[in-house]
Amino acid sequence: MPKTPAWNQNIGSYLSGYTDGEGSFCVSFSPRPKLKTCIEVRPSFSVSQNGDRREVLDLFREYFHCGTVRKNPSDKTYKYEIRSLDMLIEKIIPHFEQYPLLSSKRKDFEKFKLICGWMKEKKHVNKSTLVDLISFACSMNSSGTRKYTKEYLLRLIT
Amino acid sequence: MPKTPAWNQNIGSYLSGYTDGEGSFCVSFSPRPKLKTCIEVRPSFSVSQNGDRREVLDLFREYFHCGTVRKNPSDKTYKYEIRSLDMLIEKIIPHFEQYPLLSSKRKDFEKFKLICGWMKEKKHVNKSTLVDLISFACSMNSSGTRKYTKEYLLRLIT
Repeated sequence: MPKTPAWNQNIGSYLSGYTDGEGSFCVSFSPRPKLKTCIEVRPSFSVSQNGDRREVLDLFREYFHCGTVRKNPSDKTYKYEIRSLDMLIEKIIPHFEQYPLLSSKRKDFEKFKLICGWMKEKKHVNKSTLVDLISFACSMNSSGTRKYTKEYLLRLIT
Repeated sequence: MPKTPAWNQNIGSYLSGYTDGEGSFCVSFSPRPKLKTCIEVRPSFSVSQNGDRREVLDLFREYFHCGTVRKNPSDKTYKYEIRSLDMLIEKIIPHFEQYPLLSSKRKDFEKFKLICGWMKEKKHVNKSTLVDLISFACSMNSSGTRKYTKEYLLRLIT
């Protein structure tokens, strides 16, 4: 093995490839009775990995200069995650525009990008626009599961 | 979304990143009483994916100009796989030398490369060298499971 790491590798493309396999663009919702809309909206970008190979998660953190790597207390996995809307808009979204996903996960990214833009415009703090945001977000990550159904969330608002 | 696919992406780095997440370098063994060594050695490179995103597997096939994409009959996953020793040596190994894995999976790749080289030198058809090959291969993919244990395989030879 060469002594110098493979930094002649195109690291942006490599991380997009890794993300296409193991990454997730997610918009989750939590009931928050004290908020005007009763619902908190939390966008995040994350990549999970078994602990024996967490070095790639550290590489993500090093590359993006933001986010955290945490251990999942329930199993042996680690997760790199960014929840800051500003960091998502300033760093993550531009990256995946420059080095696009090549699988159908790209559709989730495109929806994620729209939702982050709407949140920047504060559409999530207004009940009428939040309804649209929830409906749109619930069409993402069709293979995953949601803690709260779209119907439950919409009932909380109205 | 832009109409043209993102071919300005560095596709080599992207596929190495994807492989670091979802790919596998494997050397498996099967009892074959009719062989002189009683054991068949089968190296393979594979990448698995849920069927709803099999387009990346097709991309692997298109990029390497070899291998097959097959559906796993027991679940909804698809697998891109190359088993030909010549294709592994001529296409796969040079690719991952040019666009290296950046996680500890690289250690498996380095072992895989050595074993493919030994097979090219026919070390797997000689009992004494096959013993070394089996011992070495069984130190790969430590998180996976093997159908036959190292001890069982070594007993078949001797």
